[in-house]
Amino acid sequence: MAGALSNPELFNYGVEVYEAYKKRSLASDIIEEQKKVQEADLVIFQFPLYWFSVPAVLKGWMDRVLCQGFAFDISEFYDSGFLKDKLALLSLTTGGTAEMYSKAGVSGDFRYFLWPLQHGTLHFCGFKVLAAQISFAPEIASEEERKGMVAAWAQRLKTIWKEEPISCTPPWYFGQ
Amino acid sequence: MAGALSNPELFNYGVEVYEAYKKRSLASDIIEEQKKVQEADLVIFQFPLYWFSVPAVLKGWMDRVLCQGFAFDISEFYDSGFLKDKLALLSLTTGGTAEMYSKAGVSGDFRYFLWPLQHGTLHFCGFKVLAAQISFAPEIASEEERKGMVAAWAQRLKTIWKEEPISCTPPWYFGQ
Repeated sequence: MAGALSNPELFNYGVEVYEAYKKRSLASDIIEEQKKVQEADLVIFQFPLYWFSVPAVLKGWMDRVLCQGFAFDISEFYDSGFLKDKLALLSLTTGGTAEMYSKAGVSGDFRYFLWPLQHGTLHFCGFKVLAAQISFAPEIASEEERKGMVAAWAQRLKTIWKEEPISCTPPWYFGQ
Repeated sequence: MAGALSNPELFNYGVEVYEAYKKRSLASDIIEEQKKVQEADLVIFQFPLYWFSVPAVLKGWMDRVLCQGFAFDISEFYDSGFLKDKLALLSLTTGGTAEMYSKAGVSGDFRYFLWPLQHGTLHFCGFKVLAAQISFAPEIASEEERKGMVAAWAQRLKTIWKEEPISCTPPWYFGQ
């Protein structure tokens, strides 16, 4: 943020960010990122899975860029979030193989731990979420397997605009 | 990390961190944090819930401090993780009230979205996890309600050593 605080007597981070957004006084790098999101029809988050989530630097992007006023408001979230005309997709690489995650009690489609990102963050902002692209353990895969992962991803991207979003609600995730 | 890379031909972050840990050449701030964890019987993570998870700065702490060699190793994780003689507890404040989360389809005990932190991170490193302390919406609570939250937390801490850890496995979280 640039400029004076909205309420210097009682600092409230959320309030200050919200006010700064409305006054267009957020830090310039955040405004730049918001412009990119605003112009996008589909936002692809490409990251290595760290602790079953995004790496801290990408969490910081979410914490700061997807702010109140820009991405959602008090009564405008989930299907009414401001980014509701956009698609989002998590494309992630893992350290472990699919078999390792399965042995650790994680279902193959990762829905359990993608919930905070796909539903709690992206859907909260209105995004329609496409199925995650998961490339397992490229680090220990063969060169041929790695090329296969990239080719599969490239193939999927050719028809990505025809895909239907996942339903992205708690029952979908937890089979209720 | 300080000093030369283990493999300058092919940079692999995970490998470099693991090697640096073994050679005691991690950055000094990380070593300091690891010492604190090593000396603790109970680690309390106090944070405001951002996007159904920890704020980026705390995610960065987890990403960097809980490294291979220190917190886990290739075949030593979950109940065999290196921090298995320690307790961990998430103490978090939320923006919304309990009722808001309930309306949004989130169960009252937050187990869905605490899974990546409690099971996927802390339990993975061996920690026995105590039930989360959740203080709902202190920002919009009355002064009296806020004092009540702090008093309840203080009361709980008096007998914290007698508490049993949660079972912290996927069936516990998802009622399988």
